[in-house]
Amino acid sequence: MNFDAHYDLIIIGAGSGNSIPDENFADKKIAIVEKGLFGGTCLNVGCIPTKMYVYAADLAFEASHSERLNISSEYKGADWQGLVDRVFTQRIDLIAAGGERYRRGDETPNIDVYDHHTRFVGPRTLSTGIGGEERTISGDQIVIATGSRPVIPEVVRDSGIPFHTNDDVMRLPEQPESLIILGGGFIAMEFAHVFASLGTKVTVINRSPLLRNLDSTLSDRFNSLARERFDARIGRTVASATGDSTSVTLTLDDGSEVTADALLVATGRRPNGDEMDLDLGGVKMRDDGRVQVDEFGRTTADGVWALGDVSSPYQLKHVANAEARTIQHNLLHPEDLRELPLENVPAAIFTHPQIATVGLTEEQARAAGHDVTVKVQAYSDVAYGWAMEERDGICKLVADRTTGKLLGAHYLGAQASTLIQQMITVLAYDIDLRDFARRQYWIHPALSELTENAILGLDFSE
Amino acid sequence: MNFDAHYDLIIIGAGSGNSIPDENFADKKIAIVEKGLFGGTCLNVGCIPTKMYVYAADLAFEASHSERLNISSEYKGADWQGLVDRVFTQRIDLIAAGGERYRRGDETPNIDVYDHHTRFVGPRTLSTGIGGEERTISGDQIVIATGSRPVIPEVVRDSGIPFHTNDDVMRLPEQPESLIILGGGFIAMEFAHVFASLGTKVTVINRSPLLRNLDSTLSDRFNSLARERFDARIGRTVASATGDSTSVTLTLDDGSEVTADALLVATGRRPNGDEMDLDLGGVKMRDDGRVQVDEFGRTTADGVWALGDVSSPYQLKHVANAEARTIQHNLLHPEDLRELPLENVPAAIFTHPQIATVGLTEEQARAAGHDVTVKVQAYSDVAYGWAMEERDGICKLVADRTTGKLLGAHYLGAQASTLIQQMITVLAYDIDLRDFARRQYWIHPALSELTENAILGLDFSE
Repeated sequence: MNFDAHYDLIIIGAGSGNSIPDENFADKKIAIVEKGLFGGTCLNVGCIPTKMYVYAADLAFEASHSERLNISSEYKGADWQGLVDRVFTQRIDLIAAGGERYRRGDETPNIDVYDHHTRFVGPRTLSTGIGGEERTISGDQIVIATGSRPVIPEVVRDSGIPFHTNDDVMRLPEQPESLIILGGGFIAMEFAHVFASLGTKVTVINRSPLLRNLDSTLSDRFNSLARERFDARIGRTVASATGDSTSVTLTLDDGSEVTADALLVATGRRPNGDEMDLDLGGVKMRDDGRVQVDEFGRTTADGVWALGDVSSPYQLKHVANAEARTIQHNLLHPEDLRELPLENVPAAIFTHPQIATVGLTEEQARAAGHDVTVKVQAYSDVAYGWAMEERDGICKLVADRTTGKLLGAHYLGAQASTLIQQMITVLAYDIDLRDFARRQYWIHPALSELTENAILGLDFSE
Repeated sequence: MNFDAHYDLIIIGAGSGNSIPDENFADKKIAIVEKGLFGGTCLNVGCIPTKMYVYAADLAFEASHSERLNISSEYKGADWQGLVDRVFTQRIDLIAAGGERYRRGDETPNIDVYDHHTRFVGPRTLSTGIGGEERTISGDQIVIATGSRPVIPEVVRDSGIPFHTNDDVMRLPEQPESLIILGGGFIAMEFAHVFASLGTKVTVINRSPLLRNLDSTLSDRFNSLARERFDARIGRTVASATGDSTSVTLTLDDGSEVTADALLVATGRRPNGDEMDLDLGGVKMRDDGRVQVDEFGRTTADGVWALGDVSSPYQLKHVANAEARTIQHNLLHPEDLRELPLENVPAAIFTHPQIATVGLTEEQARAAGHDVTVKVQAYSDVAYGWAMEERDGICKLVADRTTGKLLGAHYLGAQASTLIQQMITVLAYDIDLRDFARRQYWIHPALSELTENAILGLDFSE
């Protein structure tokens, strides 16, 4: 086989993988292959822009729900085009373009950028291209970091109706007056919050309960709240779909119909390994479609690594980043391989109420045989919760009665993603909860008293 | 001297002191002496109701400042009477009355409640009363927990003009259209935020920079922001004051005049030990007016203890509570005395931006001879700060370059009082910061990345 170029390292995907080549790789000849935008899903169509929409939605929601606090405020509407412009034109697109310019420019002369789709044509050998030209390149080491893409249900795909995903729904030319959201996971629930708060009539259709992988106390509570807020068709599937660019109608399995201006599909994401002829490179996939990696991030092919959504059990940016740091180390230190950090992985869902979770659910902890103690602490029972007139929020801690160790922490309510960080620290440092509350101060009356009281409410054996 | 009654334990003040008699004191004869409301300053006129006003103000402020987020919202005003009613009639007053009823009732038959002002008439002997009757009581142990009261500058006191303090400003019959706030400490700045956000025109008069005890990076930034927001007369004192129940005019030392509907005095608080004839009980005060206690909370008189604002170096409820727990233990375990926990005491100021601080300022750390490394991390440089379009917020960490230990943490911005809790944990557990950021996950893109990046920005010696 003829190679147009050979590299020390080829990185496929300019999301988290692009963070690998730092100054320690200055003496290596590197290729970065990215057919899309630099920055990957998180920057361009995921975590970062969604949170920019969510925060605006949070304020719109609060402005519409201030009466309980004896103030009068009104949400009057969004400047959708201004929002799109602020998020993308003025922020995200500049960062993506800057990231690509940096890699193509003089500051990293050891790096070549290819911009075609890439597939394996042999061991450590790829077919790709630059501009109009196809190229075959090979590498001593290859990192597959090609991410994932939205799954589109067949009934939608086959119907031929227009639909949106996270890839384009934030850049719609105008805010839809009504929106059907298909799916009940975190992407669906974040967008449901965004659009509903901004004034769009939202209908959610999902086969199972919403956010069903959460601890059931949180999941049950979230589903009750969501049913009050959205037109929620839970336990339903789509039987058929019709529509055009101005209106979509879905017929559900119970014969009911839902019509809206637009349809957002958020029914999960599929790893992108299936589009790369991995078998030609000797890279195996798991049954679930992820690239198979060992504890160090190595695929089944010598010198080929994988990280992020394409291979990880977690479709989370902070995990992809941590995996990238691990593989970065492992590439430089083959004699001192580190394991991918896949324990105590936290996650947050920036919907309303906000949700954050780390460690085991109560169900998981019991199934694992722990002597479990649980405390569900309501926001409404701490002073800052009084100030907020917060009625729904809870913190649920799951701990081991015998060892005093935290097993899982689950927050549903304001600042959940901030509050949980202290519990992430507790897990990382294996701290005994039995004297945790009293060994430190808790500012009165800050919201952190929620955690203090949750811990004090756990029942440890003497 | 004749005693009307003798007790195992007398507690003077039903704020934090009231938390001492729990089930472990069931066999002791106890008197609680409280001339005012049960619950003390924090519950009735301090931390708790102020935060209820602050949170409403936060939402009013946000509703007035949403344009940067491309949404349109409007704050239309407060239902002041509804606010007073919700906070006090429906919440605080019920708790205070319930606390008193509980202590007077059958559930704590070992406890008598006295409701007169109290002063010492001899060693461990007090003059007080119940209802219309005066009583002299004595105790084997006495806990002084009488708190503090607002300081009123002579020029205001002597002028005879009406003025308000935190004791009554939250229960004004109506929201003033304009308000002069005298003072620049945390109480002044919380009320300035409350009233300005709710629509009152606020003028702040203070001799020194506002919040001048903060780390100077935070203090400087806060003063800039406050000058934009309030009519701030900094470096000014009041020369004379005139007014009546509808209007107050203060003439400042530079000859300028300020007129408003009402005046709030928030120029500090004085410990209440000076009104108790402490010398007759053998209880000494420090030069600054606090009751003198040793490391265990013992005053200079045998069997007499003190806690909270009346004696503590910190006028903070969480400190008073911690001191109460310590003295509770010490009363029960005279052979195993514990020290008052006065290290790494955090504090928060619920103004706008919110402020929270723990440990040493940079100035203090340098003065103490540490090999200091400092990082000031802007909210605007983390992804969640992008979502918030937050331009002012900062986290400043102060650490020891050589030991890797945190010395101080200072937050100014949204969720400051929540974010800081993790750093309080770091101090309490003496955790090395050098591997702290990478030994745990930080949810992307949660606001906790502010702390992660601040830590990564510290420069430790290799």
